[in-house]
Amino acid sequence: MRLAVDAMGGDHAPLEIVKGVEMALKTFSDIEITLFGDEVAIRKVLTSEERITIVHTDEVIHSDEDPVKAYRRKKNASMVLAANAVKEGQADACLSAGSTGAYLATGLFVVGRIDGIIRPALAPTFPTIDGRGFVLLDVGANAEAKPEYLLQFGLMGAIYAEKVRGIVNPRVGLLNIGAEENKGNDLTKAAFNLLKQSNLNFIGNVEARDLLNGVADVVVTDGFTGNMVLKTTEGTAGSIMKMLKTSLTSGFISKIAALMMKSKLSGMKKLMDYKEQGGAALFGVKSPVIKAHGSSDAFAFHNAIRQAKLMVQANLAEEIEQALKSNDIKVEVTK
Amino acid sequence: MRLAVDAMGGDHAPLEIVKGVEMALKTFSDIEITLFGDEVAIRKVLTSEERITIVHTDEVIHSDEDPVKAYRRKKNASMVLAANAVKEGQADACLSAGSTGAYLATGLFVVGRIDGIIRPALAPTFPTIDGRGFVLLDVGANAEAKPEYLLQFGLMGAIYAEKVRGIVNPRVGLLNIGAEENKGNDLTKAAFNLLKQSNLNFIGNVEARDLLNGVADVVVTDGFTGNMVLKTTEGTAGSIMKMLKTSLTSGFISKIAALMMKSKLSGMKKLMDYKEQGGAALFGVKSPVIKAHGSSDAFAFHNAIRQAKLMVQANLAEEIEQALKSNDIKVEVTK
Repeated sequence: MRLAVDAMGGDHAPLEIVKGVEMALKTFSDIEITLFGDEVAIRKVLTSEERITIVHTDEVIHSDEDPVKAYRRKKNASMVLAANAVKEGQADACLSAGSTGAYLATGLFVVGRIDGIIRPALAPTFPTIDGRGFVLLDVGANAEAKPEYLLQFGLMGAIYAEKVRGIVNPRVGLLNIGAEENKGNDLTKAAFNLLKQSNLNFIGNVEARDLLNGVADVVVTDGFTGNMVLKTTEGTAGSIMKMLKTSLTSGFISKIAALMMKSKLSGMKKLMDYKEQGGAALFGVKSPVIKAHGSSDAFAFHNAIRQAKLMVQANLAEEIEQALKSNDIKVEVTK
Repeated sequence: MRLAVDAMGGDHAPLEIVKGVEMALKTFSDIEITLFGDEVAIRKVLTSEERITIVHTDEVIHSDEDPVKAYRRKKNASMVLAANAVKEGQADACLSAGSTGAYLATGLFVVGRIDGIIRPALAPTFPTIDGRGFVLLDVGANAEAKPEYLLQFGLMGAIYAEKVRGIVNPRVGLLNIGAEENKGNDLTKAAFNLLKQSNLNFIGNVEARDLLNGVADVVVTDGFTGNMVLKTTEGTAGSIMKMLKTSLTSGFISKIAALMMKSKLSGMKKLMDYKEQGGAALFGVKSPVIKAHGSSDAFAFHNAIRQAKLMVQANLAEEIEQALKSNDIKVEVTK
């Protein structure tokens, strides 16, 4: 299996990306990696070129550029070349920790939609208290959504939960502002009916306050709301951990106490840490397109590679295409 | 000043409501309270009837009832009678910890909209790390929103922040999925333009991940998104505190360490606790309508009463009506 990696994307590129790649090559014996980016900068941090190919390019899309314009202008950007390798069959999946917007455009236009999928969706895996985790989609591939998109998100999320995460008969929930069937806005009311009529294991509306308690395995929502929930969760967790750190390191007694429970606190931090979860996957494109977090370190990128490998092995795109065609899961696409 | 209180609303009514009322009567010498609810149950927990009037009613709206139907059928429900007292000039403000949906309907139809306000908005005050806090609106009075609503939310929030919270020239932010002007969905793009043209101190888009860092004093959004952000923040904070508690009380060393830093942790919990913040206010109605949290204890309800008192003193409704009419703050209402 060959994975195409944008070596220049993310806050700590290329150092942490390359280190993450080397870590993954050690962990997974059946993968080979093609790195796209500045050859000199990459070689400076690379310790061995075994099972690694480097494709040089000067162009990089920076996170402060307009994503769609950048994608259109920079046809030799490292992330675009990585996606091209997938399109041309030279790689099985691509990964980048670079600009989310530009990478979404790249995935959509270069790798391309699966036949029958109206809109791809960006789907991160969230941690839950019980360690089971859940997939939330969409978190921002589409700012506006229609009920049919949410039905397809449910289908794609369920296939991912089952084939990649190993969850039997995954519970699909609709993110809403109340548990009752008639709750929400026009979009959620219509999506509720579509999901109810489908053959998915639809458990109804789920509320944002219950998400981290593991109320569902797949949670569908529009990209605007999903992005809000993702950022609010990250922001709240980050603020609390910051406050906790400040609280626990001010004053002598607290400092000693903090030392005494260091392993416990780091265990908790680990459970809440997106770095453990791999990257967000763009569901609905023809081959796995993985977006690693912009602040990824080597370990986080290593986990994103593990996720890409699992997605390739699961033949996710084919499974989705089959499910769309099959009568087992009914997906009615209205105009 | 007389405040009308629904004694039967909330998870711990009437006990904690009555205790909160008695606490508030001690703190604030210039208020009198009318309690609406089951006379016998109220008298059972009341220690003194000084500055307290009881109006008996058997009807209560329960949180598992359909809110709007319940409001329509139960004209003698404790929360409806409390709002009636405000409408008829017998009280200056009303408070309830009961069903949010039913109380919103009550506030809207009984107390009534301010002339010129298209839609009232439910507005809680969020804590921030720096202790300054911010007002978020709408968190669920309207599931669908138009750009003009968001402009009026900004106006009402700014007046509240200034007159009640004492913040000079409050910063108004638009909740969005990116900081740049062209980000978001159709609603936020149109609302951005309206807010930019207004005379509010509009600071542009703000992201959910920065909210608890105190990035703005007033944050406007549609009721669906606001409700998601509110519930996600509560859920994430609750889950982390639960994990923290479990982590810190498992194992002998952790237990000792937890004891050593008990005061620090409770200080942190206090900062994150909605009970400190009073209730959520329904902005845009003719007199203050305060919704206390359903799980309010006496202290939380006491704080909601303090908020009601400040809102009455600030003549909030009149300030909003004046601002709408005045040329200083331009509000264009399109159909």
